Amino acid sequence: MLTTNPFEDEYGDKLREECGVFGVFNAESAAAIVALGLHALQHRGQEAAGVTSWDGAAFHTHRAMGHVAGNFDRDDIIRALPGRVACGHVRYSTTGETALRNVQPLFAELQSGGFAVAHNGNLSNAVKLRRDLVRRGSIFQSTSDTETIIHLVATSQYRTLIDRFIDALRQIEGAYSLICMTPEGMIACRDPLGIRPLVMGKLGDATIFASETVALDVCGAEFVREVEPGELITVSESGIRSVRPFGEVRARPCVFEHVYFSRPDSVSDGRSVYDVRKAIGAELARERPVEVDMVIPVPDSGVPAAIGYAQASGIPFELGIIRSHYVGRTFIQPADNIRHLGVKLKHNANSALIRGKRIVLIDDSIVRGTTSLKIVQMMRDAGATEVHMRIASPPTRHSCFYGVDTPERAKLLAARMTVEEMAAYINADSLAFVSVDGLYRALGEQGRDALKPSHCDACFTGDYPTPLTDHDDIAVPDQFALLDERVMA
Amino acid sequence: MLTTNPFEDEYGDKLREECGVFGVFNAESAAAIVALGLHALQHRGQEAAGVTSWDGAAFHTHRAMGHVAGNFDRDDIIRALPGRVACGHVRYSTTGETALRNVQPLFAELQSGGFAVAHNGNLSNAVKLRRDLVRRGSIFQSTSDTETIIHLVATSQYRTLIDRFIDALRQIEGAYSLICMTPEGMIACRDPLGIRPLVMGKLGDATIFASETVALDVCGAEFVREVEPGELITVSESGIRSVRPFGEVRARPCVFEHVYFSRPDSVSDGRSVYDVRKAIGAELARERPVEVDMVIPVPDSGVPAAIGYAQASGIPFELGIIRSHYVGRTFIQPADNIRHLGVKLKHNANSALIRGKRIVLIDDSIVRGTTSLKIVQMMRDAGATEVHMRIASPPTRHSCFYGVDTPERAKLLAARMTVEEMAAYINADSLAFVSVDGLYRALGEQGRDALKPSHCDACFTGDYPTPLTDHDDIAVPDQFALLDERVMA
Amino acid sequence: MLTTNPFEDEYGDKLREECGVFGVFNAESAAAIVALGLHALQHRGQEAAGVTSWDGAAFHTHRAMGHVAGNFDRDDIIRALPGRVACGHVRYSTTGETALRNVQPLFAELQSGGFAVAHNGNLSNAVKLRRDLVRRGSIFQSTSDTETIIHLVATSQYRTLIDRFIDALRQIEGAYSLICMTPEGMIACRDPLGIRPLVMGKLGDATIFASETVALDVCGAEFVREVEPGELITVSESGIRSVRPFGEVRARPCVFEHVYFSRPDSVSDGRSVYDVRKAIGAELARERPVEVDMVIPVPDSGVPAAIGYAQASGIPFELGIIRSHYVGRTFIQPADNIRHLGVKLKHNANSALIRGKRIVLIDDSIVRGTTSLKIVQMMRDAGATEVHMRIASPPTRHSCFYGVDTPERAKLLAARMTVEEMAAYINADSLAFVSVDGLYRALGEQGRDALKPSHCDACFTGDYPTPLTDHDDIAVPDQFALLDERVMA
Amino acid sequence: MLTTNPFEDEYGDKLREECGVFGVFNAESAAAIVALGLHALQHRGQEAAGVTSWDGAAFHTHRAMGHVAGNFDRDDIIRALPGRVACGHVRYSTTGETALRNVQPLFAELQSGGFAVAHNGNLSNAVKLRRDLVRRGSIFQSTSDTETIIHLVATSQYRTLIDRFIDALRQIEGAYSLICMTPEGMIACRDPLGIRPLVMGKLGDATIFASETVALDVCGAEFVREVEPGELITVSESGIRSVRPFGEVRARPCVFEHVYFSRPDSVSDGRSVYDVRKAIGAELARERPVEVDMVIPVPDSGVPAAIGYAQASGIPFELGIIRSHYVGRTFIQPADNIRHLGVKLKHNANSALIRGKRIVLIDDSIVRGTTSLKIVQMMRDAGATEVHMRIASPPTRHSCFYGVDTPERAKLLAARMTVEEMAAYINADSLAFVSVDGLYRALGEQGRDALKPSHCDACFTGDYPTPLTDHDDIAVPDQFALLDERVMA
Repeated sequence: MLTTNPFEDEYGDKLREECGVFGVFNAESAAAIVALGLHALQHRGQEAAGVTSWDGAAFHTHRAMGHVAGNFDRDDIIRALPGRVACGHVRYSTTGETALRNVQPLFAELQSGGFAVAHNGNLSNAVKLRRDLVRRGSIFQSTSDTETIIHLVATSQYRTLIDRFIDALRQIEGAYSLICMTPEGMIACRDPLGIRPLVMGKLGDATIFASETVALDVCGAEFVREVEPGELITVSESGIRSVRPFGEVRARPCVFEHVYFSRPDSVSDGRSVYDVRKAIGAELARERPVEVDMVIPVPDSGVPAAIGYAQASGIPFELGIIRSHYVGRTFIQPADNIRHLGVKLKHNANSALIRGKRIVLIDDSIVRGTTSLKIVQMMRDAGATEVHMRIASPPTRHSCFYGVDTPERAKLLAARMTVEEMAAYINADSLAFVSVDGLYRALGEQGRDALKPSHCDACFTGDYPTPLTDHDDIAVPDQFALLDERVMA
Repeated sequence: MLTTNPFEDEYGDKLREECGVFGVFNAESAAAIVALGLHALQHRGQEAAGVTSWDGAAFHTHRAMGHVAGNFDRDDIIRALPGRVACGHVRYSTTGETALRNVQPLFAELQSGGFAVAHNGNLSNAVKLRRDLVRRGSIFQSTSDTETIIHLVATSQYRTLIDRFIDALRQIEGAYSLICMTPEGMIACRDPLGIRPLVMGKLGDATIFASETVALDVCGAEFVREVEPGELITVSESGIRSVRPFGEVRARPCVFEHVYFSRPDSVSDGRSVYDVRKAIGAELARERPVEVDMVIPVPDSGVPAAIGYAQASGIPFELGIIRSHYVGRTFIQPADNIRHLGVKLKHNANSALIRGKRIVLIDDSIVRGTTSLKIVQMMRDAGATEVHMRIASPPTRHSCFYGVDTPERAKLLAARMTVEEMAAYINADSLAFVSVDGLYRALGEQGRDALKPSHCDACFTGDYPTPLTDHDDIAVPDQFALLDERVMA
Repeated sequence: MLTTNPFEDEYGDKLREECGVFGVFNAESAAAIVALGLHALQHRGQEAAGVTSWDGAAFHTHRAMGHVAGNFDRDDIIRALPGRVACGHVRYSTTGETALRNVQPLFAELQSGGFAVAHNGNLSNAVKLRRDLVRRGSIFQSTSDTETIIHLVATSQYRTLIDRFIDALRQIEGAYSLICMTPEGMIACRDPLGIRPLVMGKLGDATIFASETVALDVCGAEFVREVEPGELITVSESGIRSVRPFGEVRARPCVFEHVYFSRPDSVSDGRSVYDVRKAIGAELARERPVEVDMVIPVPDSGVPAAIGYAQASGIPFELGIIRSHYVGRTFIQPADNIRHLGVKLKHNANSALIRGKRIVLIDDSIVRGTTSLKIVQMMRDAGATEVHMRIASPPTRHSCFYGVDTPERAKLLAARMTVEEMAAYINADSLAFVSVDGLYRALGEQGRDALKPSHCDACFTGDYPTPLTDHDDIAVPDQFALLDERVMA
Repeated sequence: MLTTNPFEDEYGDKLREECGVFGVFNAESAAAIVALGLHALQHRGQEAAGVTSWDGAAFHTHRAMGHVAGNFDRDDIIRALPGRVACGHVRYSTTGETALRNVQPLFAELQSGGFAVAHNGNLSNAVKLRRDLVRRGSIFQSTSDTETIIHLVATSQYRTLIDRFIDALRQIEGAYSLICMTPEGMIACRDPLGIRPLVMGKLGDATIFASETVALDVCGAEFVREVEPGELITVSESGIRSVRPFGEVRARPCVFEHVYFSRPDSVSDGRSVYDVRKAIGAELARERPVEVDMVIPVPDSGVPAAIGYAQASGIPFELGIIRSHYVGRTFIQPADNIRHLGVKLKHNANSALIRGKRIVLIDDSIVRGTTSLKIVQMMRDAGATEVHMRIASPPTRHSCFYGVDTPERAKLLAARMTVEEMAAYINADSLAFVSVDGLYRALGEQGRDALKPSHCDACFTGDYPTPLTDHDDIAVPDQFALLDERVMA
């Protein structure tokens, strides 16, 4: 329940984290452990999955469209991935069409031997780099920005693989948490801003890297620490080494991991995601109170914030919307002539509860507004006398270029409308978002430090922490606008 | 969320409702509406589904193993089921191996024309009747008890189909909610005790029958009334008629529909299932209080009772167990040598929340006890200092013969152990069940009326409301035992 | 090569034998042997196959649409068919839509125990019998005429299974070679006219029944003898018994088995099919000589007759038409706008050979004439200066009701046209058929004995050997017409 | 019949041509025509197929394991391959594991735009070239030698695509018939020795290239001429141009195309393949006569030579071995305990014909000898009193490195044994091969010109026409040995 949020985006109305990565060094049946880890990270990418293993003599890769379960829990597939070292990847399509050859880990036979890469994030200068590489004779097999990294390694003038790899990292911009495999061992690294998460764990003698702590939990591993922004860790038979190829860095991890992407049972930046979400809900109850009979979560991602809101306000928490679990298997309405029916395949109002009541709905975010529109109407149809809505994040006004699937700006409701217009659009009696400062307070800070913000919050503020080489048409938001956002949110 | 419970029975540790039925008379694309209705009833049977339609000239049937989605939302399949009249069925295997020829609706060409039957329930004298029919030359194609009904109709000495059908009903014993189709129209009926549910709805000019009200909601239909115990309703172009072939009857609908089977957003016996479950939780808080820091539902079926328990006790409701939604696609652990890992594929403790806390877990029932055992241990591993458990139903001590998949008695934990032994077995600091009277109080009565109980509660009390012709080896529980149960529970 | 003819009917222009049956009593892995036998009989029915086995305690059945290979050579399927007794069936759709429930062996649980039936042939009074059975309460599950036999057995007033079976046989009319299984053993029988073939073989201690001798060859079994027309053979642990339930009978086996249905390596009625076909070709060379440069078979079924024609005439046998073997997997022309191309997917002219030559094409039969039309044109396009055609059977003028898929009469070219008109239609320089008497001469007789013909030749003569109860609209051909045919052919 | 030989290699006992290529420039639905062409070339490669099309704006590729039919005759697939230019490929695995990424056409985005390559043949220095390319940073995605060509083009220092392509050709050694596509048009070329075939045709305004003339026939195209050894032809909107990048060359096309690879209805080197095979049979009858009752072809590839043998010797041609067409779908014997049966799944003796007769079997070649061994035994079991064998090619003693799948030398029966030992091994009364000179006589020459042989016959003589850079362990046969072979064969 209220958790992994996988299928809930029935109206294409959520931002989507685009990848999860997982690696194991030095464990029996390493690929089987990777499969478990990827299964726990499935909410980070549901279109495809891949696993690469190294058995001391050869690399083995299997990639498949679809879920981890049904593919990587098959005996025959796991047996075809032998060895004590393995890494894997789940993905949405980021840059690149959804096709098997874009599914990661990507693999290449370099002169130094095999080289596999699993990448969570997105480069913001991949297009430019690719153009240069093709000019010099590199042949790309995928449309993935990750392949750029491999070609940079292959054509680097340095001699050792690790020097070539660092040479490549220094040329790329954007967000990347990488797990790589070579015949010598495993490399994990995180971009200098640490935009996408990466944690390190331990399972007996094995070292594990994963996008989230839940992936450690699922296989019974211990959390050791986060891979730090700008850190590169190598694991081989000769031990674990940490390198800082970028010198001093200023971390800006993605704040949306707290809002929606991470599972509530993960711990991110040292903080329980569930606690942060409850804290945002409580903050919202204080910033934007409303007099109603019950607090109703939009399932499932709104639940922790709703519990926080209910506890802070003293208004009862109730399940006013019941969600069919079967949405996992999308039910396609087969006949046009029944589309006019008020079909409620995935959510149904708990009418007996709602009728005659004033309610506040709690959701994590509004992207296009399509979900909110339908949910508010469903509540009214069920007999609610007042329907208020509170959102556990600031208005989403800017696209993300760091590995999150956001619609183009023109489709973001909050980029087109004021909050009042949004309230009218979704037909709510009132609508309010937590403020940017409120969000930072829920994270334990005083508010957003405008000069040195602790997180990447570009989707709310437009304050992008890297150059946008491939997107030079994106207007830099002026400082006034930024202040403005803070006031409005 | 907290709802349709489909996949949650990860340890084979729930009673399972075995069928859902749905029928539409006089609507365009009737089969498409049936598909929607069955999708909403998917929690009542997930192994197979079937739909039969009548287009005024011929009957069309499609049956498939697996879910409604993926089968009956395909355009080609719906187009092959034309007509304005259709009925459908979702099923677990009840009596009869899981094979396509047991999938309903069953259909036969009788002398009077085609005859289709969708059956929710189970006959308790089907074996005996079948033996007689075979002796007289009837050839059975399935192992389903439902086929018995059709042969009784085919070989009846009466002349009209409806007289033959009533003749058949008078010979059968047990639980049955039936939706039948003939070239003339649709027949819906419910056994004299009304053990299994059946409701009637209206969608424009169309008449609908369904196992639960949610199936009306999903297609935008209005609830009209329940089909009453012992009532037979015919719908044809000449109108709707109600017949009472059994005279006076005393209703005993299944109480477990309230406890677990029905969706919380259904209304059953005129009562909101969600409300009844919250009321059971509140009753439990009063009967079996405990001093703890938080109330934690066992997701998802324990949630409404947990909310009721939390509200009645004033103890905070928290999500201490996070469930992966991806369990829908069962992930099979592929390698033996990783089985020793404490794998948490489906449930994960919210450790940051639990650590150092005293908790009470709320679940709907205990069947074999395997789930409870694992959940309690998971909570202890996550650092809970005390783990108490409260169950929102009385101990399940007896098998059901009316269309519910119960393990043989010897495997029911409560049939083998006292509550204290069960607490020790699952390693809980305390364990308690709601009393039988408490359950009836949650339903709005004073307690169980031992002489005229309002529901079938045989799984708790052993008090079976019909003869068990095919199960004459089942001991009749003595009255003392029955009283005893009430005290112990 | 030139043999089993399976896929060659590219233009839907052959009569099709509709079934093959095979049974084994008392052999290890009986089902595996049945699979081999059915594979050898695949040319007799390619749409579906089924096998039933008896393991001393239970019957097991598997049925599948498609070929024997790919279904019944799978280990898991054969393992699920244990036991020392098994029978099987390959089929085209005869009476009854092509659906899994029409696939044989049919099976029923009778009072006496399980009863499985595999049937080659077709009943000519099944419709009437079925109507009576339904009136008395029998429920049919298939549209197959074979199910009629089973219901007659089930409802017979006799006491033992064998008496009930004979009771049933005495009520049915038409063509049937049956292999049945009961817990006691196997029953094989052939209708009083012996229209469809059935042979008996021996493999160590095992007894085998099969439609053709090639099915004995394929599993290394010895041919023992034919099951005789009107004979019923039982095989059980107590031995082999032969019964003649119909008294004296006059055999009329199907002559088309020699012309086309049987494999050339089979021996039918004590005669090598290959030899008979060569003899027909030789007869044709004598009856209908032509002055040409080469004899060219229409592959593959025309090959033996072409060799016979070439040897008798002294004209060289050459491969003027090359057939792609890949036609097994039908290649569907994907784009409408290339249909105008003279696409030659399945047959291609050996142009280098043909150019400037006079040729005679030899084919086994003409049904609709579509193949002949295309083949003649292909030869002309390849540069043949004269194209003559000789057919190794008399004109096919009448439908078959005994288990052969013939088009309705109106679509039989020879029923609509004289031979001269046919020659013009297919654009041949000359066309001729072997005479009816010539056909009988090739079988070693003097000619057709008009009073007591040795074979069923109704498709050529209209002289049906049984009443046509279900087809009483078929005109009885008058005797003059019959004589006429002889002259014309 | 006797033709395309696809499935006949039941005992893995044939040399296998490894590829077929087909290209169309300037036709509507070009991909559909390519599909037809590939279907006609299916005998040249049955494991995988691929098609690439160019629609004036983008390249589209579909590749699939398995046959052309079932993949490239599907409307959806053809629709996804739009455009007026397309090429395709059928393949066995040559160098490179059988995996989708080795399936051709290979495609790369070069700086000059897309570049697709379909390759029939095999390079003999690909390993060396690949090693150099990887050292310089090229990343290979397949194990196919064809990819080497693309990387040579991508990294060439020349400026235009055509110059880069010729630069690449000058570095490669071995056999290659290539069809390439660029946005400008199509390139077809053949290595300087013309080892593998390539012909050019015309269909209206469209230009076609294909491995064999049958592929022109199938789509109704006209044969124009062969692409000449060492010729490079470009086709674009500005017309057709021919270039000779290698200057003077001496052609050595593969002689085995006549013996077995090409379809009998193809014309190769200006000669009808069927005629050449008959001529080899006639040559064999003269060189190696035998007194027997009948000439029996080993189906299907032995048929033309058998007809030639029969006509030259006057001994009757008869079908003594009947082949089941169903072998296309391999029937796997499912149960170990029936393996001892003399199972004849694919070939069956026509025993009624053979019994008591002296026969000579005609086959095209002997590779491992397994087929011959079984066929001879089958004839003896069927009652033949003498079994002689004549082979329509010289003994196959050497591996091929030019795109033919030959077993390693040690497994070639003729590399291990004298002809007498082979006769004893296969248990024939006599065995003889056509002589090398006889083979050349059948091609219309006086015999083999030892100084300037007109064909590549390395598999018979060991006289390889190119350096074997990647196989420098292959002993150069001395001239004496070569002469020796001629005598022995």
